[in-house]
Formats: sequence, C-alpha cells, structure tokens
Amino acid sequence: MDGVESEPTRIMLGVNESSIKGYPHASISSRGAFEWTLQKIVPSNFSHFKLLFLHVQVPLSLSLDLLDSIYASPEDFQAMKNRDKARGLHLLEYFVGRCEEIVVSCEAWLKKGDPKEVICHEVTRVHPDFLVVGSRGLGPFQKVFVGTVSEFCAKHAECPVITIKRKADQAPQDPVDD
Amino acid sequence: MDGVESEPTRIMLGVNESSIKGYPHASISSRGAFEWTLQKIVPSNFSHFKLLFLHVQVPLSLSLDLLDSIYASPEDFQAMKNRDKARGLHLLEYFVGRCEEIVVSCEAWLKKGDPKEVICHEVTRVHPDFLVVGSRGLGPFQKVFVGTVSEFCAKHAECPVITIKRKADQAPQDPVDD
Repeated sequence: MDGVESEPTRIMLGVNESSIKGYPHASISSRGAFEWTLQKIVPSNFSHFKLLFLHVQVPLSLSLDLLDSIYASPEDFQAMKNRDKARGLHLLEYFVGRCEEIVVSCEAWLKKGDPKEVICHEVTRVHPDFLVVGSRGLGPFQKVFVGTVSEFCAKHAECPVITIKRKADQAPQDPVDD
Repeated sequence: MDGVESEPTRIMLGVNESSIKGYPHASISSRGAFEWTLQKIVPSNFSHFKLLFLHVQVPLSLSLDLLDSIYASPEDFQAMKNRDKARGLHLLEYFVGRCEEIVVSCEAWLKKGDPKEVICHEVTRVHPDFLVVGSRGLGPFQKVFVGTVSEFCAKHAECPVITIKRKADQAPQDPVDD
C-alpha cells in the first residue's frame, strides 16, 4: 500500500441543523451520516481516520430573502447573528463531543454561505480523502422545492462523495423536514 | 457502536475489463477504485472489511447488436462464450489474488447482462454496506456516446455508492477507453 498506512484517511462530513420544531441541534440525516461513518468505515481502527466536520450556515441576508418583509433594528440583527453563531457552535459541539467519547480524531469548521457551494469550496481547499453527506432521500416532486445539497456535491466536489440517505422509518411527519 | 464492531463491513466493487488494445485484464478505473478502497477505507484493519467483486459481462447477443452483420457457426458462438467466460474469470482472479496477498477477505461473482442494471440488482440481492465503482470522469460530450454505469448506480442502487474517478494523468490516448 505504498507506505500510505501511517497517514490517516481524512473524511469530511457536511452537517446541518434540524428544521423540525422542538428537535434541537443536528438534523436526522446529518446524524445518520455520522453514525453510518462510525459504524461502517471507522469500526475499530480509530487512529487511521480523522473526521472533519463542516457546518455551513445560511447568512442572515440570504435567509431574509425568504421573508416578505421584516422590521428590525441594528441591535436586533446583531443579536440574531450572535444567536446563529452560538447555535452553529452548539451543533458542532455535539459531533466533536461524540468523537471525543470514542477517541476519534476530529476538527470542526463553522462557515457562512450557500451550503452546497461552501462545501465544494472547502473540499478544494482542505483536500479530504472523501466527503460524506446525509440526504433526506426525497422524491423528485419534493426536491423541486428544496434542492439537494448532496446531489450538487456529488456532481461538483473535487473528491469522492458518499451520500447516506435517511432511513424511511426516520422520516418526520413532513419529509421535507429533517 | 451498538455491537456492530464484530460484523465486517461488506463493500461491493463493480469491476470491468479494459477496452484498450494490448492492455490486459482490469480497466484503469476499476483498478483505481480498488486501490483507493484498499488505501483509504481498509488501511490496516483488514479483518473488519470484506470485499465483494462483481464483474458483469455484456452477453454475446447484446454486443452483437453493435455489429452490422456477422457470420458464425454454432461452434463459433460456443467458442466465443467460453473465451468470454475465461476472460471474466481471469479478471476476477486478479482482484482475488491481490486480496489474498494482503489477507483481506473477499468473494467474487461473474454475471451476464447490462452492467448498470445487474449491479443494482445484485446490490438489492446481496445488501452490501456500500458500493464502490470506478468512473472515467468523462465530460458531458463524451458521455453521450458511452453512458456511465457509475451515474446510474449512484442514482438507483439501494445502498450508498462512492464513485472513484480515474486520475487525469491516467487517462489513455482516447479518454473513452479505459
């Protein structure tokens, strides 16, 4: 194996927050992709793998485009930004904490932008050996409205990509939620 | 990890023959996908992985459709079939032999049919944890004429799929070759 054995395999995981009300932190499909990676790829030989978590937050200016109108003071915006950042860090803390428990080496990034584009950009910058992304496994009709980060990454990321679909029995009431 | 540690991760690899004249046995992208799997996924913890090689041969009747006309006796056809089978077994022997050298557990199948459909069918039957396929990484113009097994499998196979693109510096003179 050409002396590659000593270099850990660096696996980037794109993770996001749940959109379900009252369901805190990581989305179902992010957690599914993470648990799959631990069970199937990193089953016991922990020292040979390093997980790189990437959480991309949609910036306030992009998410506000979705609203009809908004009234807020500069202080309100600053408070929203701080709250957003705290939520993002909290999300990453969950994954980093799990890795610490089972002694898998990891790093974590919080970025802002369009998730699919930032993930591909970070792949080009960080050069992971491969990228794992979760997917809701939506049908074509549902996809029209929500787009899929996983499909974009599978097509455009400059490294191999493995997409882990959410299990059917884990789909919430509205499958577009996650 | 819920006691899954003792169960090996079963990785199916779709492999095919090279189309390059004078280039015997496995295609460049099949060998690339295989070597990638050994280096990145199975770096030293061999007992936790099992490789399932699947080689699908296009049957004589399908490949003959590509010819304008043919004249051959029944004996000629039987000889062609036997030669095909021998070539297929020889291809699988290469991968199985490499696994024996490095003591990775494996199985190998030789099947007939449309490769993309048979691979998806075998995934449904055998339930690997994931599927690895090589790809020539062709542009949209080149793909029109040759189709891509990897894209079909990524879309239709009932398990996670990881596509390993052939390295640019390994592309033969005609990139449609492999």
